[in-house]
Amino acid sequence: MKISGLSERSGVTIASIKYYLREGLLFAGRAESSTRSEYDESHVSRLRLIRALIDIGGLSVTAAKAVIDTIDDDEVPIVHAFGVAQHAVSASLTSATPPTEAGLRRVDALKQERGWQTHGRNPGEEIAARVVDAFSAIGRDDLIGLLPAYADAAEIVARADLDATLANGDDRRLMVETVVVGTALGDGLFAGLRRIAQEDIARSFGLPGSSLEPSPLDQNGPAS
Amino acid sequence: MKISGLSERSGVTIASIKYYLREGLLFAGRAESSTRSEYDESHVSRLRLIRALIDIGGLSVTAAKAVIDTIDDDEVPIVHAFGVAQHAVSASLTSATPPTEAGLRRVDALKQERGWQTHGRNPGEEIAARVVDAFSAIGRDDLIGLLPAYADAAEIVARADLDATLANGDDRRLMVETVVVGTALGDGLFAGLRRIAQEDIARSFGLPGSSLEPSPLDQNGPAS
Repeated sequence: MKISGLSERSGVTIASIKYYLREGLLFAGRAESSTRSEYDESHVSRLRLIRALIDIGGLSVTAAKAVIDTIDDDEVPIVHAFGVAQHAVSASLTSATPPTEAGLRRVDALKQERGWQTHGRNPGEEIAARVVDAFSAIGRDDLIGLLPAYADAAEIVARADLDATLANGDDRRLMVETVVVGTALGDGLFAGLRRIAQEDIARSFGLPGSSLEPSPLDQNGPAS
Repeated sequence: MKISGLSERSGVTIASIKYYLREGLLFAGRAESSTRSEYDESHVSRLRLIRALIDIGGLSVTAAKAVIDTIDDDEVPIVHAFGVAQHAVSASLTSATPPTEAGLRRVDALKQERGWQTHGRNPGEEIAARVVDAFSAIGRDDLIGLLPAYADAAEIVARADLDATLANGDDRRLMVETVVVGTALGDGLFAGLRRIAQEDIARSFGLPGSSLEPSPLDQNGPAS
């Protein structure tokens, strides 16, 4: 198909397709002439992956390129793919303000408690430490008590991520894709489910107001 | 203290303080003259909360204001506070592209399976449905199999959030603060811990490459 057909099939504008070609996120089509290339289903699939990473995973174009290069490179070990995905997906969660030593020490203590082994510093340590710092900064050190439950939940999700990866154990490419897609989209999936579970559990505990007021979660409620 | 002292104590620039005063996120100081106000520790605390919500929670100024208004309004029921916090924190996770009916149906089926009750549509449903849509769009419907494990994890975190809230059961203001802070910062805390657990579990399973290569998670690795 021509680039116009590719745009139609994928729902991505021609301008964006050209941009992804230039940036190397999308591989070139088969050149038919100096101004025309022929594209196929593999281009449609790749464009959908690019859009999922950027639109739903919140990755920058640079981060999406790093992730896609990892899928394409047959030499990359799976564990390395986890690393690339973690760094790419963490970029939007880290900031110019580094965590304090106290915050990092608290996260390190949690690692010890859970027996979590990492090689050097995992990007997640900085992200978690900054939240611990924020709890302290607002005078709510008591909220650090949330860490063990969140760690239990993190282990369940990490194991599910790994199981999904190993389910494609005979196909290296599919394994790497699972790692990067799961890491990039899993945060959003968890955040969504957490909100639903939070509303359910708050209601079932009969928190003040839960049976008295129309729900603010209703589309017509004051919070929408 | 003067505004310059407030800036020094809180680490927030005078320009930002004036902006938060104008937007109503920070309550006014005691007027000493037409050009000078006196601020106290309550202003320092409030500024730290504002920065935690914006810098770590990723909230917009508008969303932070909605959250802070909820803390300040003694009439707001706790369950309503959950709703405001959920909407405020979800704004950055939703997008102009609505989820498909198929995606929403899949999330609805999960709610049925878990017995999760919500009043109307919880903002998390849209977020989760869009991830389900993304799995389908890239031809990875098999990843929908991640949902039950993620739901288990979401229930653990939701219960911990609620326990932390109920621990302040004698202080309505502190309860509301716990709800909004926990919701705003909890996503980041979970995302951080998930990455550490993911690396640990991938290594313990001896994924290809895990014992052969220097870790890409190392600060000097190719992915940093």
